[in-house]
Amino acid sequence: MIRFSNDYSEACHPLILEALAATNLEGNFGYSRDPHSEKAHELIRKAVACPTADVHILVGGTQTNTTVIASALRPHEAVITAATGHIVGHESGAIEATGHKCITCPAVDGKLTPALVRAAAAAHTEEYTVKPRMVYISQTTELGTLYTLPELEALSETCRELGLYLFLDGARLGSALATGLFTLPDLARLCDVFYIGGTKNGAMMGEALVIVNDALKPDFRYHLKQRGGMMAKGWLLGLQFEVLMQNDLYIQLAQHANAVALKLKDGIAALGYRFTSDSITNQQFVVLPNAVLEQLNGRFTWEVMSRPDANHTEIRLVTSWATPESAADAFVQALKEAAANT
Amino acid sequence: MIRFSNDYSEACHPLILEALAATNLEGNFGYSRDPHSEKAHELIRKAVACPTADVHILVGGTQTNTTVIASALRPHEAVITAATGHIVGHESGAIEATGHKCITCPAVDGKLTPALVRAAAAAHTEEYTVKPRMVYISQTTELGTLYTLPELEALSETCRELGLYLFLDGARLGSALATGLFTLPDLARLCDVFYIGGTKNGAMMGEALVIVNDALKPDFRYHLKQRGGMMAKGWLLGLQFEVLMQNDLYIQLAQHANAVALKLKDGIAALGYRFTSDSITNQQFVVLPNAVLEQLNGRFTWEVMSRPDANHTEIRLVTSWATPESAADAFVQALKEAAANT
Amino acid sequence: MIRFSNDYSEACHPLILEALAATNLEGNFGYSRDPHSEKAHELIRKAVACPTADVHILVGGTQTNTTVIASALRPHEAVITAATGHIVGHESGAIEATGHKCITCPAVDGKLTPALVRAAAAAHTEEYTVKPRMVYISQTTELGTLYTLPELEALSETCRELGLYLFLDGARLGSALATGLFTLPDLARLCDVFYIGGTKNGAMMGEALVIVNDALKPDFRYHLKQRGGMMAKGWLLGLQFEVLMQNDLYIQLAQHANAVALKLKDGIAALGYRFTSDSITNQQFVVLPNAVLEQLNGRFTWEVMSRPDANHTEIRLVTSWATPESAADAFVQALKEAAANT
Amino acid sequence: MIRFSNDYSEACHPLILEALAATNLEGNFGYSRDPHSEKAHELIRKAVACPTADVHILVGGTQTNTTVIASALRPHEAVITAATGHIVGHESGAIEATGHKCITCPAVDGKLTPALVRAAAAAHTEEYTVKPRMVYISQTTELGTLYTLPELEALSETCRELGLYLFLDGARLGSALATGLFTLPDLARLCDVFYIGGTKNGAMMGEALVIVNDALKPDFRYHLKQRGGMMAKGWLLGLQFEVLMQNDLYIQLAQHANAVALKLKDGIAALGYRFTSDSITNQQFVVLPNAVLEQLNGRFTWEVMSRPDANHTEIRLVTSWATPESAADAFVQALKEAAANT
Repeated sequence: MIRFSNDYSEACHPLILEALAATNLEGNFGYSRDPHSEKAHELIRKAVACPTADVHILVGGTQTNTTVIASALRPHEAVITAATGHIVGHESGAIEATGHKCITCPAVDGKLTPALVRAAAAAHTEEYTVKPRMVYISQTTELGTLYTLPELEALSETCRELGLYLFLDGARLGSALATGLFTLPDLARLCDVFYIGGTKNGAMMGEALVIVNDALKPDFRYHLKQRGGMMAKGWLLGLQFEVLMQNDLYIQLAQHANAVALKLKDGIAALGYRFTSDSITNQQFVVLPNAVLEQLNGRFTWEVMSRPDANHTEIRLVTSWATPESAADAFVQALKEAAANT
Repeated sequence: MIRFSNDYSEACHPLILEALAATNLEGNFGYSRDPHSEKAHELIRKAVACPTADVHILVGGTQTNTTVIASALRPHEAVITAATGHIVGHESGAIEATGHKCITCPAVDGKLTPALVRAAAAAHTEEYTVKPRMVYISQTTELGTLYTLPELEALSETCRELGLYLFLDGARLGSALATGLFTLPDLARLCDVFYIGGTKNGAMMGEALVIVNDALKPDFRYHLKQRGGMMAKGWLLGLQFEVLMQNDLYIQLAQHANAVALKLKDGIAALGYRFTSDSITNQQFVVLPNAVLEQLNGRFTWEVMSRPDANHTEIRLVTSWATPESAADAFVQALKEAAANT
Repeated sequence: MIRFSNDYSEACHPLILEALAATNLEGNFGYSRDPHSEKAHELIRKAVACPTADVHILVGGTQTNTTVIASALRPHEAVITAATGHIVGHESGAIEATGHKCITCPAVDGKLTPALVRAAAAAHTEEYTVKPRMVYISQTTELGTLYTLPELEALSETCRELGLYLFLDGARLGSALATGLFTLPDLARLCDVFYIGGTKNGAMMGEALVIVNDALKPDFRYHLKQRGGMMAKGWLLGLQFEVLMQNDLYIQLAQHANAVALKLKDGIAALGYRFTSDSITNQQFVVLPNAVLEQLNGRFTWEVMSRPDANHTEIRLVTSWATPESAADAFVQALKEAAANT
Repeated sequence: MIRFSNDYSEACHPLILEALAATNLEGNFGYSRDPHSEKAHELIRKAVACPTADVHILVGGTQTNTTVIASALRPHEAVITAATGHIVGHESGAIEATGHKCITCPAVDGKLTPALVRAAAAAHTEEYTVKPRMVYISQTTELGTLYTLPELEALSETCRELGLYLFLDGARLGSALATGLFTLPDLARLCDVFYIGGTKNGAMMGEALVIVNDALKPDFRYHLKQRGGMMAKGWLLGLQFEVLMQNDLYIQLAQHANAVALKLKDGIAALGYRFTSDSITNQQFVVLPNAVLEQLNGRFTWEVMSRPDANHTEIRLVTSWATPESAADAFVQALKEAAANT
């Protein structure tokens, strides 16, 4: 079985497993007050070129989104997001459970624009509405698309003008960074807070949160603890980022994932199938005939996104640092044969 | 100044004022454990033809909506509502502040339909989404429209089939009832919980909540207290409904408001202006030229709803039990003259 | 039946009823954007000698406590209170429902002291505890006791030193003020936020919140609306305080209540019964033999506080602006006779 | 440096590390829908002798406590706990952040009793208080003590009589089980929900929650996701419990920890020092002279609990599966020498 259903099917990169084994019994203080965490934080501060940033590493994405948003907003404040945003439909109402509304925008390709943000802000100016205070974006988005540097700059400028925090969910930041269209220091310059996703790019688990804006820093560890995001053995998270942030490992893993994804894309496109978003990252969304998919079933895995009509299905194919190039070749070959048989 | 800006510009109907004066010093137990409240509850149970209903009278609508929804739902459950629903954009995020998401539907004329409810339910079936558990509707809606009896029956049937509570916000129920298209016993038969609005139909303040479904009854008074909705001098609320529910006063006040609104509507329509919803209740929504509005300004009040283009404004005109017929005549006459002067 | 069970058994002072009648149909803008509210706010700003204070009038106490605390605190912050505080055991968990812990102190006579506040703060300094951010006191307390001016000054100084907001619940502030031991300007000087209770001192309903500290002012009306505390017919609240704050009515009503309470106290004390707190305000707590109480039952009402042993009951007797002096005489006389018959 | 500061200083038992390495790249479905999780759940259901139990493995304790309590209680319901309970003072207000009050009892030795539970319930019977609905206990407690089987049976009986769920926090359940005073099937018989802690007994991380009561099972995975407790790579948790629950590994690791702790205890007691609780588990609480502690500082770690007077400190010494017996010997020897030098 070849897995394209997601980018979290394997545990971790072998170098991380080695590091875990090497340090297994060394003894460390708890709650991320240990040398590995400190080292990881330092490496991240360097990588983002922001020596004053606060870094906290959390286990998972929902936890990170919830903790950031709940710690930053007063009860009447809300977060603006694309209607396709992960916090809207994939976290079981976690944001609302902390008391805050998600103001959703009909974003094309999953991306917010200054115009959408302005419209959302303009529709919420009275005291009987919520008050927009933060903008949430993902890089890459749920649709595999990404913001270019000029797009990020324009969004950032709009947020600052309107008094909105810019929060970037980087669960798949590796894949985005690997395109070379922007850098970590760009994010530190443009966002108030963002995170560097480890779970989907080589780590067993771990999302490294970078708080740039001083206003969001005070007492953040209280919130970590309160929301269940402070791990007793925090050094396990620190250690993994210590490995990932050295020798360009983080970026190399993502480059590999993207390369395999593009190979898949090119191969599938050559067969004439339609993609529902124009992705150059590790997620590809394509519409295939059901009759073809039935033949692939059992040999490959994917995720079903929608059923545009009775005979077609939109699927998502995802690659990771662990997907071999041969997997892409095998899929394209199988697809070709299946199409011929249909 | 003639006020059409809302239906809560005057304090209360003279009969209520009389009753307040007559009982001012009589002495009553607190927290709605008094004879006036008991009498009002009994009158309401009779009026809705549901002897087993629980009745609680709260001060205002936001409080009532919040208390009902928060007491009925578990943390992962959500409420389906029209995108124009009062709880969506007019209560400062009160529902989310209790932890629950509002699933919004693009409802035409502000009204949910079985198809919209089914679509919302079908889009929320996975454990990473919220779980729909309640449907919220208003009668009349925010747009002055109302559900016919067959529409209510179809919605109710859909809710029961899908395991959703049906909650009807009756802040303007008087105006809806006065159309004669449905009755209070219909609501008790079709809804799980609903309320009879007093604030906008003769009372100083007060919304009488009727809980029909046994599952929603236990411990409701704890929630009343916790959400700030239990009034120390609860008999003041009971007393007002005691007056309203006798001698058809509640329905008569609303019939008057509707009659004045229809007079307004007919007069304005005769002048050729466009209404944005087809309302037979006490709210009328009409598009007028800005140049005309400027001439009416200072003599009449209204609420601005939208600005469809640079030269026009959509306004809302609202009548109440206290609006004299002559007010409608005056507005139509003034509009006619203003139009002629433009 | 003579009522000593509480101070909210009657609706309102006749002057307020008159004002309500006089203005019943005058027409006012909603949501406390009306001349009566403005006048009331202005009178209160003058009375507290703080021209920059923000004033908001809410319907009831639980609502006020909840809204103030939830709007002031971040999610990890907590409020320090006496274990007997109203927010601890009389509001159905309303504060916790907004996400905040009440840190309780074993306060003698229901009163916090600088030492208690310091101890509570000292016990909460780690990120795995909550962070104390506000001190909540009542004047008068739940036990009828009150803070002297030097006590308030010491508490205020401690709060400022420790970075804690001082919030004073004035549901029974009238009775406290009537003792002459401190003034409204003292409160504005010493507290960050406090309220002047109307419900228990002449108004039908209404608590006038005074926000002195600029940090607590922004966006407060959003919170009012979100927590259900913004009344559509807000002028009804404004109007009542307009009446109460003129011609010393507020203080006179409370002086009357205190005088009757002291008459009660002196009469009962002369009969040799034990009081459980030393109150000079409108609440008196006394231990009486059950056999005596049985004889008074049906002629007077009171509230049972505790049952110290099988033969005795601690009761609370409360007076109000509406309690005639003769009521105190009647109670003492009846008690005397009952004691003689036992 | 020899660590007695906690039982989570090392990553995991070597057998778990081996299993992680062996399965690192095998490929698994996410969110605990994988064979390792299924196997672990099955092993746990067998171990607790409850084939109908639902099992969910979460990353950490605060997350587990929060998710269980928030999913079980309605907004007005509260949890009864010892004042020393972990949820009271060690989770940054996490329970209150979900809206629920912790009703604290002055428990001797950190243990609730039927009498304490009855007293707490009796003090909360009115609708203006919260409504007790759950009892939270830890086994072992924060003080290293534990409930005997008769004590658990009595508590369980009381809870059932009063309509309270019994929830047992088993973050240190291994150490308690290793005493042989009760069994896992006892817990499944007596509790409504409990968990088997992995983080402090051999796993890298992981708490295995066992839901016995059917009323607490529905939709629990929604809550897991909403509270950030659903791990993308859930099989990592399943795998660890797969290892721990086989060949008695879980119990053996805890027996070792207890044995070392008792060695420590006996050695220290023989030197005449006072223990503040009578613990036979892996936490020992002892009062030592500051002068002695200064000499041990730098060679051993511990946690400071309190400072009973100017010259003494109460410390906690904790052992784990990874603490060698020699560590206990070394500490006792060093203590002896330090005492002699003082």
